[in-house]
Amino acid sequence: MTDAPIPILGGTGALGAGLARRWAQAGRPVVLGSRSAERAEEAAAKLREAVPGAEVEGLVNEEAAQRAEVVFLTVPFRAQSENLNNLREALRPGQILVDCTVPLAAAVSGKATRSLGVWQGSAAQQAQEMVPEGVTVVAALHTVGAPSLADPAVELDEDVLICGDRKADKARVARLVELIPGLRPVNAGPLETARIVEQLTPLLISVNVRYKAHAGIKLTGLPDGDHWQ
Amino acid sequence: MTDAPIPILGGTGALGAGLARRWAQAGRPVVLGSRSAERAEEAAAKLREAVPGAEVEGLVNEEAAQRAEVVFLTVPFRAQSENLNNLREALRPGQILVDCTVPLAAAVSGKATRSLGVWQGSAAQQAQEMVPEGVTVVAALHTVGAPSLADPAVELDEDVLICGDRKADKARVARLVELIPGLRPVNAGPLETARIVEQLTPLLISVNVRYKAHAGIKLTGLPDGDHWQ
Repeated sequence: MTDAPIPILGGTGALGAGLARRWAQAGRPVVLGSRSAERAEEAAAKLREAVPGAEVEGLVNEEAAQRAEVVFLTVPFRAQSENLNNLREALRPGQILVDCTVPLAAAVSGKATRSLGVWQGSAAQQAQEMVPEGVTVVAALHTVGAPSLADPAVELDEDVLICGDRKADKARVARLVELIPGLRPVNAGPLETARIVEQLTPLLISVNVRYKAHAGIKLTGLPDGDHWQ
Repeated sequence: MTDAPIPILGGTGALGAGLARRWAQAGRPVVLGSRSAERAEEAAAKLREAVPGAEVEGLVNEEAAQRAEVVFLTVPFRAQSENLNNLREALRPGQILVDCTVPLAAAVSGKATRSLGVWQGSAAQQAQEMVPEGVTVVAALHTVGAPSLADPAVELDEDVLICGDRKADKARVARLVELIPGLRPVNAGPLETARIVEQLTPLLISVNVRYKAHAGIKLTGLPDGDHWQ
């Protein structure tokens, strides 16, 4: 699967488009998913223009989801549940769905510096409940800012906290994360830890407003080396 | 108040003793508070021995709390409420109580990688509800590890996220935090944000176990300069 494309559902949104751009720059084929095939193809054309030579396809989410074993879901929380319903027939056992959703209160016209309580504990746990049996949810990429990803002049230097119940699944996601220079994947624990990690986004949004910055998270004191073997 | 001592209630515990040691090394007088005057004095004697020339007193918490306007509370969550009850007659309007409490599930024999839901939203908000009128709670120092503080060979390099409803109060706490080399105080928002910041401790504990590390938190992308003026 080394050269499998990377499907990004919600790839026309800010986070999805930013990730797509970074992976395309790293030379990886990318599949942008959207509710509308037309908008997906438009976004793909834009990315091909921004990154000459990039292999980018635009497809409806359900088709994009079938292009690789590891699939990223980068839709706003408001749309997460609808998207997961639509994916019920598209996802297959053995696939990994990487949920990047953050339950910001902005989903219900609240503040982006506050979050909603999700009954299952986190958006990622809600996703795990909704995916077909045999599909595994891993949570990641909540704290990487879309503006930083979108701007190729920004040198990233931050951690990506990855939550999931099996290290092997998290390691597969980690290998994709570390294709993007400046991102270090960190094993943040079981999927339930997503209830903490998802909260970092409203915290960073609040700091960003106050400091006029694009803050990221980094854990200090971790030993060097590859912890994903 | 530049040379006011720094009272640390629960100063015989791991976090309190570690902070006391660092402040003593920085040349600041410290008052260690404990439920027992005897244990407080024992801890003070130990610190005087460890840091020659250090100005350290050991007192019961209620007396220690009256030694300065800014007072640190570093007791375990299990004891927070009892301590705040005992402080009702000791704290005076105008004082700032810096709550460092983390509602770890370990308080009820659960895991230190999980947390308890606090009805008020966070331990700090519970503290704000319990202190006498006119006393302001600021939340800070949840993510700085006691083992790192206690070991003078460890060079700290991490952020301290400070939550509180008035910037001026947070700035007073920030000035004390930055007396400790390697700690950068960051304005993390209103007191309600403590419900996020307190959750970072179980996350770090979980990472520490996995990586055999003493992890801290750092925000990347913040502009340089003094943001506390």
